[in-house]
Amino acid sequence: MTALSVVPPLAVSLGDPAGVGPELLAEAWARRAEEGLAPFFAVGGAMVLAQAAAVRGIAVPVEAITDPAEAAAVFPHALPVLDFADGAYRPGQPDEDGARLALASLTEAARLAVTGAAGGVVTGPIAKSRFAAIGFVHPGQTEFVAEAAGVAPEDAVMMLAGPNLRTVPLTVHLALGAVPGALSSELIRRRCTIVAAALQRDFGLANPRLAVAALNPHAGEDGRFGDEEARIIAPAIAALQAQGIAVTGPHPADALFAPHARGDYDVALCMYHDQALIPLKALDFDNGVNVTLGLPVIRTSPDHGTAFALAGKRRANPGATIAALRMAGECAARRAAA
Amino acid sequence: MTALSVVPPLAVSLGDPAGVGPELLAEAWARRAEEGLAPFFAVGGAMVLAQAAAVRGIAVPVEAITDPAEAAAVFPHALPVLDFADGAYRPGQPDEDGARLALASLTEAARLAVTGAAGGVVTGPIAKSRFAAIGFVHPGQTEFVAEAAGVAPEDAVMMLAGPNLRTVPLTVHLALGAVPGALSSELIRRRCTIVAAALQRDFGLANPRLAVAALNPHAGEDGRFGDEEARIIAPAIAALQAQGIAVTGPHPADALFAPHARGDYDVALCMYHDQALIPLKALDFDNGVNVTLGLPVIRTSPDHGTAFALAGKRRANPGATIAALRMAGECAARRAAA
Repeated sequence: MTALSVVPPLAVSLGDPAGVGPELLAEAWARRAEEGLAPFFAVGGAMVLAQAAAVRGIAVPVEAITDPAEAAAVFPHALPVLDFADGAYRPGQPDEDGARLALASLTEAARLAVTGAAGGVVTGPIAKSRFAAIGFVHPGQTEFVAEAAGVAPEDAVMMLAGPNLRTVPLTVHLALGAVPGALSSELIRRRCTIVAAALQRDFGLANPRLAVAALNPHAGEDGRFGDEEARIIAPAIAALQAQGIAVTGPHPADALFAPHARGDYDVALCMYHDQALIPLKALDFDNGVNVTLGLPVIRTSPDHGTAFALAGKRRANPGATIAALRMAGECAARRAAA
Repeated sequence: MTALSVVPPLAVSLGDPAGVGPELLAEAWARRAEEGLAPFFAVGGAMVLAQAAAVRGIAVPVEAITDPAEAAAVFPHALPVLDFADGAYRPGQPDEDGARLALASLTEAARLAVTGAAGGVVTGPIAKSRFAAIGFVHPGQTEFVAEAAGVAPEDAVMMLAGPNLRTVPLTVHLALGAVPGALSSELIRRRCTIVAAALQRDFGLANPRLAVAALNPHAGEDGRFGDEEARIIAPAIAALQAQGIAVTGPHPADALFAPHARGDYDVALCMYHDQALIPLKALDFDNGVNVTLGLPVIRTSPDHGTAFALAGKRRANPGATIAALRMAGECAARRAAA
């Protein structure tokens, strides 16, 4: 028996059934062998998945299971789907029933990961505005999974990871003008500490190298335009170094993502959303994974939305879904082996 | 006689003699045939260039000329250098004499472009702090060349151009927190109008497509975080469209530089320095050209600094210098043919 065999299968939430989530999940299962994916199962949506696969033109047998423990035996010959909730497949036509199905799937998938019945949770893409319309009060799936896992939302750290780059945005959905006021040395310290621990535990990096981006152009050029580097960022870096974490910066953000610089760190800590997302999407658009660090459970997600306009048209790229499944599987295996 | 033959040669300023400018200029001349570069001449620094070439280990005969008109005849067999000013080559050891030589070279190169004796000016990298120390009052070479050409500095528009992307930062050396207050519809309109005209005139794009980036993440999500998109950017775009300019936006900045999006525009107008420079340097680090639009003269520059630490070590990459020379030559040829 290998270490891998003791890892429970991954629970995958359906995402909005009108989006690209179901077809990409079916496609990922179809490519499970060539991509070397660990066993996973969908949480609900058997009919949605079967129809999505048919519309995409791929042969994907769907098999209902009643317990996650059955998934590993089914996975080689069929896409295991937990017999749970289901709905209609209407690609590109989101409705309230679909949002409810997506939320039920997410809720159960997170629960299964928290109880340990699943090795981790991979969340399919949902439309936040449609979730809000049915009473979902969390800013996003990250905060929902964090709460399910008993972690304060500010300690659930979003990392975007692609083949070329990993970035962590320290602030997210905030007007750009509000970013400087939202930064603090304590925020940077806390997040960097969580990131360093997670890269050790889940990503197999014995001594992860963190690079912290500056806020201002040219890192403020010694205070000529902006003092946040000296006032907020540098003290946090000094404190982290004193904790023994391998962290450098503040680095001028334009140089930080240049090809020769990217080899010098394992993750870039960014001050705002677009600072983290611009380079990630420029370099790794089709393979970006959104992974939540700092949780007792593994959680990943493809870093794209529902793409309602693409759903059912056989054109959506499965790269990010496959990458999210692979990353979750690898992280779960590392935790199981630890 | 072809159209090209009537284009005067390009004047190239030396840059700081202790930086990588001289060796990269010598290297570009050595590759003139394979790179298809139009004739250029260095403005001063014959000894510096000869020594820089020797230290780099390349065979570059240097030949003094006394008039730019002699450059074309010399260019095939030697690097033409205007017999002007000169100094010692001390790579990695910048001093005041070197800064004075660089400033004299820049001043004369710009003058030759303005008079039409040169087809354009390509400026070598200088250290702004060292220029400031000898009394240079301009923020950078862009503003200096603009003044020499009789253009107000705010109408000299910096564009960064690489093989994959062109970007224009609407604000530059400003604290990030000061960016929202520096934006106005009028600024965006004026710069976009200059950019559109320059891409037509100098870059051969009959109907250039401009994409304007949003300031806030997700373009503010309908005002949920930030209103600059609705208040400042969208009205400018509407006005530009009414002028007949092909402009779209405001686009969420993280999606704008993704591979599939980059084909939809010829230039991205960005709200702040790092928004423009992060994707450019991530994608086109070694070949980035800084070109000044809106001037009566052609002006380009390699988009990197003096790199004192690399000077004289044979490792500096000539890609950006070659790209700057090629772009200036192409733009000059288009103007001459117009």
